[in-house]
Amino acid sequence: MKTRDKIIHTALELFNECGERNVTTNHIAAHLGISPGNLYYHFRNKEDIIDSIFDQYVNYLADHFQPHSEGDVTLEVMMSYLDSMFETMWRFRFLYYSLPTLLSRDPNLHKKYLKFQEVSAQREVDLLYSLQKNKVVNIPMEDLDELANSIKVVLVSWVSYRTTISKDAKVYKTDIYRGILKSLFMMKPYFTEQALVDYQHMREYYLRLATAETVIPETNS
Amino acid sequence: MKTRDKIIHTALELFNECGERNVTTNHIAAHLGISPGNLYYHFRNKEDIIDSIFDQYVNYLADHFQPHSEGDVTLEVMMSYLDSMFETMWRFRFLYYSLPTLLSRDPNLHKKYLKFQEVSAQREVDLLYSLQKNKVVNIPMEDLDELANSIKVVLVSWVSYRTTISKDAKVYKTDIYRGILKSLFMMKPYFTEQALVDYQHMREYYLRLATAETVIPETNS
Repeated sequence: MKTRDKIIHTALELFNECGERNVTTNHIAAHLGISPGNLYYHFRNKEDIIDSIFDQYVNYLADHFQPHSEGDVTLEVMMSYLDSMFETMWRFRFLYYSLPTLLSRDPNLHKKYLKFQEVSAQREVDLLYSLQKNKVVNIPMEDLDELANSIKVVLVSWVSYRTTISKDAKVYKTDIYRGILKSLFMMKPYFTEQALVDYQHMREYYLRLATAETVIPETNS
Repeated sequence: MKTRDKIIHTALELFNECGERNVTTNHIAAHLGISPGNLYYHFRNKEDIIDSIFDQYVNYLADHFQPHSEGDVTLEVMMSYLDSMFETMWRFRFLYYSLPTLLSRDPNLHKKYLKFQEVSAQREVDLLYSLQKNKVVNIPMEDLDELANSIKVVLVSWVSYRTTISKDAKVYKTDIYRGILKSLFMMKPYFTEQALVDYQHMREYYLRLATAETVIPETNS
C-alpha cells in the first residue's frame, strides 16, 4: 500500500475507533510510525484526509448500489444490497456520526455532499423501482420517491441515533444490523404476497445477526 | 419572568439561532444585560443551563403527548398531536441538532436521556395504540413497537438531516413541516379505508405549510 493510502486507511480506523474529534494528524502519523512532516507531504490537514475518505465513501456507494439490470431480483440480490449497506455503515461509521459537524465546519465538503445527494437520491429511487419491476414490492408510483427518502433518512441517521441510546456511547455491529432490519421493516407494508416469504427470511437472518452476543472490540488506545 | 427563567429562555433562543457551540455564558449574560456573575449565581456553567432546557423539553413532551383517553380520536385530535410535534421540534431545534455531541460531552445528561427514552418509548407505542383502538390505523400488533420506533428515529434525526442537505446549513419552519409530513407518510400504509380521507386532509394541510415561501428570519448577530 502506498503511504497516501496507508494514511487514509489508518485515519479511517482511528476515527471509527476513537471519534474524529479525538484524533489529530499527529496521532495518525504516530500510529503509522511516520513523521508528521511525511504526513503533511501527502495531506495539508485533517480536513484534507476527511475529504479523501468522503471520496472513498462516494465511490463505495457507486460501486455497490447499482440498480439490478440483468435477470430477476432474487433473494440473493436483495441480501447482497443489504449486506453492502451494512458494510458501508460499519466501514464509514464515523462519517455518519460526525456528518452534521463535518459539513458545518467545511463548506467545500458541504458543497460536495450536496452534489452527491442529487446523484444518490436518484439511485435510491432506481433501486426501489427495480424491486417494483420485479414484483417484489408494490408501491404506489406517487409514493416511490418519498419511501426511498424515508429509508435513506433512517439509514444516514442510524449511527447517531444508536449512539445516543447506547450506554457506553459506542455502536457495535449488532447496532448496524438493527438499522438494516429497520430499513427492511419500512418496506414491509409494500412487499407483495409472493415476496413476503423472502421478507421473513431476510428478517430472520438479520435478526440473528442483530442479536448475536456483542463482542466488545479490542481497542488500541 | 424570574432571572433564572429569563436565562433559560434567552439561552434557548440563542442556541437555536446561532448554534449551541457558538454561544457562551458571556453571550447569554450580555444579551440579557446582566453581569456574568449574576448568571453564575443561577447556573454553574453552560452544561447546567442545557440541563434545565432538557428538563423543559421532557416536561413539554409529557404535557403534549398524552394518549387520548376520552372520546374518539378525531381529525382535530390527530392534528393537535402533529402541531405539538412541530412545536416541539421547532422550539427545541438546537437540542435535536446537537444531541449526540451534548450527550457525549455530559455523562449525567446522557444518563438522564437514557431514563427518559424508556418513558418516551412506551408513550409512543401508547399513542399509536390509541389510533389503533379508534380504527384510524390497522397495524399488526407485532409491528406496533417497531413502527413507533421508526417514526421516532425519523423525528429525532430530522433537524440534523435537514441541516446536512440545506444550502445555508440552517433549518426553517418549512423544513420541520416536511418532517411532520414524513412521519405521516410512514403511517400511510396502515391507515384504514375510512380514515384515508383524514390522511389526505392532513397531508394537504401540512404540505401547504411545508411549501410556504421561506421567510429568512432576521438575526440579531
